[in-house]
Amino acid sequence: MKIKFLKAHGAGNDFVMVKGFESAQIDYNKLAVKLCDRHFGIGGDGLIVILPPESNKYDFRMRIFNSDGSEPEMCGNGIRCFAHYLHQYGLTAEKLLKIETLAGIITPEILKIDNKTSQVRVNMGRPHFKTEEIPVKIDNTSDYIKEYPLLVDGEELLINCVSMGNPHTIIFEEELDKFPLEIWGPKLENHKVFPEKSNVEFIKIVNRSEIIMKVWERGAGITLACGTGASAAVVAGIKNAYLDNEVLVHLPGGDLVIEWSNQDSGVYMTGPAETVFEGEIEL
Amino acid sequence: MKIKFLKAHGAGNDFVMVKGFESAQIDYNKLAVKLCDRHFGIGGDGLIVILPPESNKYDFRMRIFNSDGSEPEMCGNGIRCFAHYLHQYGLTAEKLLKIETLAGIITPEILKIDNKTSQVRVNMGRPHFKTEEIPVKIDNTSDYIKEYPLLVDGEELLINCVSMGNPHTIIFEEELDKFPLEIWGPKLENHKVFPEKSNVEFIKIVNRSEIIMKVWERGAGITLACGTGASAAVVAGIKNAYLDNEVLVHLPGGDLVIEWSNQDSGVYMTGPAETVFEGEIEL
Repeated sequence: MKIKFLKAHGAGNDFVMVKGFESAQIDYNKLAVKLCDRHFGIGGDGLIVILPPESNKYDFRMRIFNSDGSEPEMCGNGIRCFAHYLHQYGLTAEKLLKIETLAGIITPEILKIDNKTSQVRVNMGRPHFKTEEIPVKIDNTSDYIKEYPLLVDGEELLINCVSMGNPHTIIFEEELDKFPLEIWGPKLENHKVFPEKSNVEFIKIVNRSEIIMKVWERGAGITLACGTGASAAVVAGIKNAYLDNEVLVHLPGGDLVIEWSNQDSGVYMTGPAETVFEGEIEL
Repeated sequence: MKIKFLKAHGAGNDFVMVKGFESAQIDYNKLAVKLCDRHFGIGGDGLIVILPPESNKYDFRMRIFNSDGSEPEMCGNGIRCFAHYLHQYGLTAEKLLKIETLAGIITPEILKIDNKTSQVRVNMGRPHFKTEEIPVKIDNTSDYIKEYPLLVDGEELLINCVSMGNPHTIIFEEELDKFPLEIWGPKLENHKVFPEKSNVEFIKIVNRSEIIMKVWERGAGITLACGTGASAAVVAGIKNAYLDNEVLVHLPGGDLVIEWSNQDSGVYMTGPAETVFEGEIEL
């Protein structure tokens, strides 16, 4: 069987995208492993499947699979590519979409679209700060772990903790260029205070509305972009009064804009989704 | 401009393949960097360009570019994919092809072809053994460095040295599964006895006509397959009287068969070339 696919990326986080198959027999977990292989397959961080909605109140259903075959609830960079795909192939004319995902209904909004690139805005949900929500095992009387001096291999690092549904540790670091991410990333990820490990973001503040970020993802290491990481970093910067409510985040794979207006609102992420190429593969 | 391409691999060594462009203005070095990027491009170890021959005595001309944009003389896995491409697209019916490359005329022979996979045999050239040909700085009175005890970080490793146009260090190791390639590979690659560094092959002998190989490539680290490495390893095994003249080599990316009949003959490599997918990309 030959299938057609689109390869797309959102800030360097790249996906193989296919329409859902009629046959219910298909094993998407196995297919993801095969197609995401960068030598023997198409290559990608994940496989995204475009499906009709289960309820007619919504527009489409997205399933996403990591390259190891596991199925995460959602992916901020992935859902931007999903919205991009629908518009590239004329499957909808709606700008504000209601998409069924394992994390519930997500509503990406297409702000701009041209031949190859879309700008898409997505509500990433509300951040959480309580130690048991992150989770992090630090005795803390305040409602948020802010610039806490954590002893890591004999050195004190000032950490900030935010959950965006997954745990994030944010470190503001003036000398980001010289900072060895590959050394401190894994030490922090696996530090004993994080019972479920942690993603780690290192942030250089350019000004109140612009930061540079490097990210060490839990289980993945250094990556080109992380939507929840950018969200968590900006939230920490706003909580610490370092940043304004709308911030441009420069990541190795591209730029994202993160907005967070107040404690009770969701975090909005705006970023690109881009067509890389189209193809056909024999399964 | 939209271009069509074929993605193919030979034992896991993967290439983006395009027909040469009419326009002489195209910068293939830059194009290779762009297309070989695994997140923002198609992804591949190299770009192969199919061109008409410069002399009508030959069938086609191959140019190959690494993912960093450099242009190597030749690539054993690449030329198999080149022959495969010609037959997949019906550009020739010849089984034994004469291909112009920067390393001279190479004559890949299609032994078998089906829908997606070809088996192709290639003369990899003659091996060289003299210390100055490899090059290696070891005082050696014999014509070949055989099971020489090299001190590496306080441990003695028995090395064998072969040049296949590039330097190879071969180590026969019973306990290959437990052997930490990522530790010994770089130490050997950069050892002071190798003025131009070295590729390193670790070999487990299954029997006189079958080996298992792991490879640490100079400048690239652990790779799935290395044609010159498999050739060098079998040549060393034959020189040491461990192996017969035709040997099946199991590599992480697939199997190769290496033949070497005598000191003065070329080394023949037979292996697969496989279509992965076809696509179209906007440049």
